[in-house]
Amino acid sequence: MMRQGSCHCVTVHQHQSLASQTLSCKEDDDMTGEEVKSMQKEYSLQSWSKQKGLNPIPVEKGEGIYFWDYEGNRYTDMSAQLVNMNVGFGNKAINDAIKEQVDKFCYAAPSYAVEARAKLAKKIIELMPDNMGKVFFTNAGAEANENAVKMARMYTGRFKIFSRYRSYHGSSFGAGNLTGEPRRYPLEPGIPGFVKFFDPYIYREAVPFESEEAATKYYIAKLREQILYEGPNSVAAIVIETITGSNGVLIPPKGYLPGMRALCDEFGILLICDEVMAGWGRTGKMFAFENFDIKPDIVTFAKGVTCGYVPLGGVVVSKKIAEYFDDNLLSCGLTYSGHPLACAAGVACVNYYEEVNILEHVNEVGEVLGEKLEELKAAHSCVGDVRYIGLFSAVELVKDKTTKEALVPYGKDPEGTMGKILGKLKERKFMTYTHENMILIAPPLIITKEQILEELEKLDEVLSIVDKEFI
Amino acid sequence: MMRQGSCHCVTVHQHQSLASQTLSCKEDDDMTGEEVKSMQKEYSLQSWSKQKGLNPIPVEKGEGIYFWDYEGNRYTDMSAQLVNMNVGFGNKAINDAIKEQVDKFCYAAPSYAVEARAKLAKKIIELMPDNMGKVFFTNAGAEANENAVKMARMYTGRFKIFSRYRSYHGSSFGAGNLTGEPRRYPLEPGIPGFVKFFDPYIYREAVPFESEEAATKYYIAKLREQILYEGPNSVAAIVIETITGSNGVLIPPKGYLPGMRALCDEFGILLICDEVMAGWGRTGKMFAFENFDIKPDIVTFAKGVTCGYVPLGGVVVSKKIAEYFDDNLLSCGLTYSGHPLACAAGVACVNYYEEVNILEHVNEVGEVLGEKLEELKAAHSCVGDVRYIGLFSAVELVKDKTTKEALVPYGKDPEGTMGKILGKLKERKFMTYTHENMILIAPPLIITKEQILEELEKLDEVLSIVDKEFI
Ligand SMILES: Cc1ncc(COP(=O)(O)O)c(C=O)c1O
Ligand SMILES: Cc1ncc(COP(=O)(O)O)c(C=O)c1O
Repeated sequence: MMRQGSCHCVTVHQHQSLASQTLSCKEDDDMTGEEVKSMQKEYSLQSWSKQKGLNPIPVEKGEGIYFWDYEGNRYTDMSAQLVNMNVGFGNKAINDAIKEQVDKFCYAAPSYAVEARAKLAKKIIELMPDNMGKVFFTNAGAEANENAVKMARMYTGRFKIFSRYRSYHGSSFGAGNLTGEPRRYPLEPGIPGFVKFFDPYIYREAVPFESEEAATKYYIAKLREQILYEGPNSVAAIVIETITGSNGVLIPPKGYLPGMRALCDEFGILLICDEVMAGWGRTGKMFAFENFDIKPDIVTFAKGVTCGYVPLGGVVVSKKIAEYFDDNLLSCGLTYSGHPLACAAGVACVNYYEEVNILEHVNEVGEVLGEKLEELKAAHSCVGDVRYIGLFSAVELVKDKTTKEALVPYGKDPEGTMGKILGKLKERKFMTYTHENMILIAPPLIITKEQILEELEKLDEVLSIVDKEFI
Repeated sequence: MMRQGSCHCVTVHQHQSLASQTLSCKEDDDMTGEEVKSMQKEYSLQSWSKQKGLNPIPVEKGEGIYFWDYEGNRYTDMSAQLVNMNVGFGNKAINDAIKEQVDKFCYAAPSYAVEARAKLAKKIIELMPDNMGKVFFTNAGAEANENAVKMARMYTGRFKIFSRYRSYHGSSFGAGNLTGEPRRYPLEPGIPGFVKFFDPYIYREAVPFESEEAATKYYIAKLREQILYEGPNSVAAIVIETITGSNGVLIPPKGYLPGMRALCDEFGILLICDEVMAGWGRTGKMFAFENFDIKPDIVTFAKGVTCGYVPLGGVVVSKKIAEYFDDNLLSCGLTYSGHPLACAAGVACVNYYEEVNILEHVNEVGEVLGEKLEELKAAHSCVGDVRYIGLFSAVELVKDKTTKEALVPYGKDPEGTMGKILGKLKERKFMTYTHENMILIAPPLIITKEQILEELEKLDEVLSIVDKEFI
């Protein structure tokens, strides 16, 4: 019944005495790109897809903002993969750190003390505002949010959790119930006590605002009203993407986050900032909340902490919350928490950000990106809005600039329009992803001005096609 | 407000032209064990613990079944860390594979085809029964279970999920709601539709059974009754640890799993085997369900697939389920799905199992373990039961062999008795963990007979102390 690979075998004992030799029983390594692609399609399931008709590019190698398929075609990574590969491919500092840790040991259980784990925790706390105390490491972003919610419930003794409609916080049950967009639906019937509120999505607000101040006043007042209706004493936390990412780089109006902070303080609610996508330099600050002069109670992170070189995520909690768990059981845990290899990659990655002064670079190149996006908006009738901060941006496509009718309706794309647009970009080797009627532009943070300009010309071309053929 | 590390910085541009040089801005690497320990305690939160008074051993290096602290003390790993490090520390084949993949690239998004990803998926399907079709990769065990439940709901269109009381499936909301033991409580109020049933825990059954057959008949009849009461048409899946791990290595009686398989077939319910802990050779078969001659519809795995060298987990689904997702959206996804570095480690790890014929070795050494555990049970009045299969075993401690009164009551340990016993083992450098009134013994699968005998003498000593001082 079980199909075992056939292979000349040695015993464990023989092998141990062979100590430093490498066993020679390897598969042939000379696969073609086509073989890699068809093997992957035959044996594995791809995220967020119908599997029929998938045509994944087989990646052979990468360098900086570029990667290559097996035929030598070069692609530009204009989304830093999933907005995580901030340093691009092949960062030598991180690669070396991984290898160095491999030579020490790859893994030790979370209950042991490990140098890389200790150093990364310290490093992260040093980058945080002075109210923050300790880090709990997870494997990724969804798990970071799962654990943040658990901790908020334990610490407050309350069970309701507020989060927003236009948000993505991960796909596991807890993170997926935080999520407001359609990727939440398969997780319903939902977890009791998860409450949704509206985002500050000014471009699409039902009745337009007179000013940013008016918008802030409105959103904060409505949130306060909703907290009152839900019962403030049962609300443990408000979870937000500090700047909403996948759902279209929604940048909150001035005063919004301080307003939310004040509401939290008024009602004893914890403010949890999901910085999984917006953190680690993406917005031109190390963390996105720094753009708004607030201090969260809990911060979740992943992606940019290791740039995906090794899976890692985590939760940073305030000193107050950390102290609570001195004498109260932290009922959170996972096999790979504080994974040594991941933490070693994290230390190297965060050091790298500082060594190359990544923030200054992001702000410089981000300015060029912003200017260019404004030009595209002015030039193309299909561009309803562009939103950008640092190297984090979205282009929102519409059928009509005046009515703002979205190029595809919410939650569906019956004619595969956005896929076709992505295809046009892909023909030009401009690789990114779309969400609803939006194209995300969030390249590796190491991209240069010249590279940005070169790539945005391709986008310009494609938007001209959209102007002509899709609206 | 933000405390930034001070450091001589170069710009991204300068750095890119420095190409192959390593930046020299590193922290002093000569930390002592005490420094590592106190830094980790100061800046990070440890799983499943009150933080005050923690005293984690700082690990400096490891080799095979042993690891060392910074003072040169050698410890024996009798739980394979968290029952994941099957090959022990410092496996050269896996280490080399990681380094090789680092030199290619560490990460590419799940939507690209990657050689290591394709190969590992193929390898896993080849090891599975012939009804299994495709793999969906996750970061770890909890996420594997989260996604298994999501897929089962999507595929069946039903929403109820059965799982058992004495079980641990992970700590995120979905996996934690599957979990039956107290680590579930902080996740309540629970997710609607998650239903618990009783385990085949024969040693502690309220009324003893006449035979294994009688037990099986009883458990299957009760499960059938419960399915009827819940409404079979709303039950998507039954999720079980094929052999319950952390909760005390509960081995189902003969006929139990085939009985459950038949119930699932009768009602169109999917059988999901959580092989996170029991899989990958632990029980002397590659997967634990092979001990019982059944074919699951979905298998979840993690731990032993890479031995923790790089975080990895996954879900294997039947061909039928895989086909369903040809034309239906697989609404599952995560940033690091099919992580190239993790998959490269996985390929090397699984190849290693085959090359050293790990199963034969586990069965040989497991026999010695079993004999020795029976001797301990006969010799010590504190040992109520021993349960073992392959290198997976538990020693259940009681106050009284006849009444079977547990050494500590369920869900608590008011006097810290189990911690004290662990302490006695730790004094002897015998490292493992306990759960409720049970000591888990699940060493790396590469342990030799001589090593097992040497270590179990330490356990023997400690059990003598328990006999005298704790009961
Ligand atoms: C804001 C945000 N939070 C959480 C997540 C989930 O992270 P992961 O995919 O690592 O689980 C994502 C992923 O894109 C994200 O963008
Ligand atoms: C049977 C079982 N399932 C799931 C898990 C959760 O795995 P992870 O800690 O990798 O999330 C564990 C962890 O011990 C386990 O033993």
